[in-house]
Amino acid sequence: MLILVGMGIHGYKGLSIEAIEAIKGAEKVYVEAYTSPVRGRDIDALRALRADVVEVHRWFVEDGRRVLDEARVGDVVLLAYGDPLIATTHIELLVRARRAGIACKVIHSSSIVTAALGVCGLHVYKLGRVATVVSSPIPNTSTYYAIYSNLMQMNHTLLLLEYDQEHGYFLAVDSALRLLLDCEARERMNVIDEDTFAIVASRVGMEDMGIVGGRIGSLLKHSDQHGFGEPPHTLIVTGSLHFTEVEALRASVMLLDEPIDNSKRVSTRAEMMLPNYIARAYNALSRAREYIMHAKGNVGNKAKDKDEDEYEDDAIGRIKDMIDNAEYYLSDAERFAREHRYENAILALGYAEGLIDALRYLRDIDPWASKKKST
Amino acid sequence: MLILVGMGIHGYKGLSIEAIEAIKGAEKVYVEAYTSPVRGRDIDALRALRADVVEVHRWFVEDGRRVLDEARVGDVVLLAYGDPLIATTHIELLVRARRAGIACKVIHSSSIVTAALGVCGLHVYKLGRVATVVSSPIPNTSTYYAIYSNLMQMNHTLLLLEYDQEHGYFLAVDSALRLLLDCEARERMNVIDEDTFAIVASRVGMEDMGIVGGRIGSLLKHSDQHGFGEPPHTLIVTGSLHFTEVEALRASVMLLDEPIDNSKRVSTRAEMMLPNYIARAYNALSRAREYIMHAKGNVGNKAKDKDEDEYEDDAIGRIKDMIDNAEYYLSDAERFAREHRYENAILALGYAEGLIDALRYLRDIDPWASKKKST
Repeated sequence: MLILVGMGIHGYKGLSIEAIEAIKGAEKVYVEAYTSPVRGRDIDALRALRADVVEVHRWFVEDGRRVLDEARVGDVVLLAYGDPLIATTHIELLVRARRAGIACKVIHSSSIVTAALGVCGLHVYKLGRVATVVSSPIPNTSTYYAIYSNLMQMNHTLLLLEYDQEHGYFLAVDSALRLLLDCEARERMNVIDEDTFAIVASRVGMEDMGIVGGRIGSLLKHSDQHGFGEPPHTLIVTGSLHFTEVEALRASVMLLDEPIDNSKRVSTRAEMMLPNYIARAYNALSRAREYIMHAKGNVGNKAKDKDEDEYEDDAIGRIKDMIDNAEYYLSDAERFAREHRYENAILALGYAEGLIDALRYLRDIDPWASKKKST
Repeated sequence: MLILVGMGIHGYKGLSIEAIEAIKGAEKVYVEAYTSPVRGRDIDALRALRADVVEVHRWFVEDGRRVLDEARVGDVVLLAYGDPLIATTHIELLVRARRAGIACKVIHSSSIVTAALGVCGLHVYKLGRVATVVSSPIPNTSTYYAIYSNLMQMNHTLLLLEYDQEHGYFLAVDSALRLLLDCEARERMNVIDEDTFAIVASRVGMEDMGIVGGRIGSLLKHSDQHGFGEPPHTLIVTGSLHFTEVEALRASVMLLDEPIDNSKRVSTRAEMMLPNYIARAYNALSRAREYIMHAKGNVGNKAKDKDEDEYEDDAIGRIKDMIDNAEYYLSDAERFAREHRYENAILALGYAEGLIDALRYLRDIDPWASKKKST
């Protein structure tokens, strides 16, 4: 039988009765520390329980043949940090075992995914998509947009930081924050800046756990002056905060700044573009009205005959109706935008723009261009 | 000290070394089974460890005064199912304790939030906002929209089902599914129907765990014919599935149907409205062209003088330019929609509509109305 056992986030003492029974009773016990680190003293404690615990590396689990062969004939335990099925590599091993007809068992344990939110007093129901910050810049773009979508949904974002066991490498908190600010500099969607409120949760579940919250600018300063201590570190970019969450942050987190609602600081492309576009259209509208006044004044002044006067008078009346209608649609666009009905707002705005711009085709005047000159 | 201890999802044997030490060493040990159920045999096992374990009810934890008074002078353990900080009521107790200067400790444990996804072989990185299905219809509307946003982001939705300890009430799987279909009937956003793929994860972490996946129609039939056994049950509405997730589902889940990509079956309001609106605008455009042809043919036929003919000829030429431009903008709208640039698509569409509709004001013809008659 293949038995995947979670070490949880509390180290050796976080092992459950069932996990210890499995470790004691198995033919073979492996512990892997590459998906997430397992501290040396916890491996020592495991070895005190059973001297023949073997620490294995990435290739051993990814290759998996030896584990599966052994699991065919006896009980094999594979221990890993946290909840074992958070790592897709463990799911893959499990799937291969099941397909090969090998009995499987999973002993779940505590995970940073739920614990990190809980220790900060944040509601797990508001957790959005979990993402990872890595040291190479490009993959972080998708993390940046995960934060964006989560904030748009008012959700919190849990950010895991890259860990590379082979090179003993943990992405540092300040580097992770700077990588996210770099994404902002590239993407310019106003998702994250030095004023964004974030939380650094360090060593969650360990005796020396530390949680610091503040604006990213303050966190970077804190990093320079005091650091955040030993890894692992986890970042949280909070979304909208319920008042009980704010109270919990005040009671549970070392706050460098008061928490703010980061979700209020992001907007959709539509929200960003509408106010300017609507203002620009109102400007064009007033230029159109000026034209109508002027054209009306001209009727009868230089006309060659009465018929033509009537013709022009009628045409100007129709244009005035059209521009009045454009104004109704512009005020609809404003109202829809206030109601966050952005599709309707943009459609009404576009329609008003079309009506106003008809003047360009019909009367050789460009309400938009003249507006530009006037500003 | 106040010690919050998670029972995890594996029952008594899921308790960790640290948790058992805390239970043995505390002055008082309470277990609450109202945020989630704790099985009788697990409470019996706790009582075998310590005869004076007290089972407490909602009011006891929510009031919290006795727990806090006792935690001021000695160690008090409060045990709860899963990871204790998933329940906001436990976070609130912790915050009150910290504010009162009472030392606190949290012993985390496995949670259904991460485990349910893992046992199905789904990636926890694709977990969207967690939601709850309750027996009264109205609150499920927000759950319905949580599924919608999660699907739009290609994320999975974990749905917890209502549990009421006082009345011994669990929301049944079939009722939960029907309540979601009722939301669809009301909201009509094409989020969920009998063809949506979903997973029923029953008794996750227990020996008699069962996981069944299939289209909602099939799951309802399965519920009638076989049922899903004892609670607790959890639902998952999957988003986009990575091929390793599909393989894992095939290996780990009793499948009534092949998994499908539910995310492909949802669309934004913009995606839904654009094809119809663009088609309607093309129709209006061709009516406008018919009018132009007709008006051109009339020039010179019934005109009173040459000046008027020239005037009309010029005016029709300008209208033709305008309608040609409307067509360019319509084809832009189509292209933007294909590129998922919906804001740009709607703006271009609205602008084209405005240009076409200028004819209504200027020439007393309604390209939209005539189109309606023609369909």
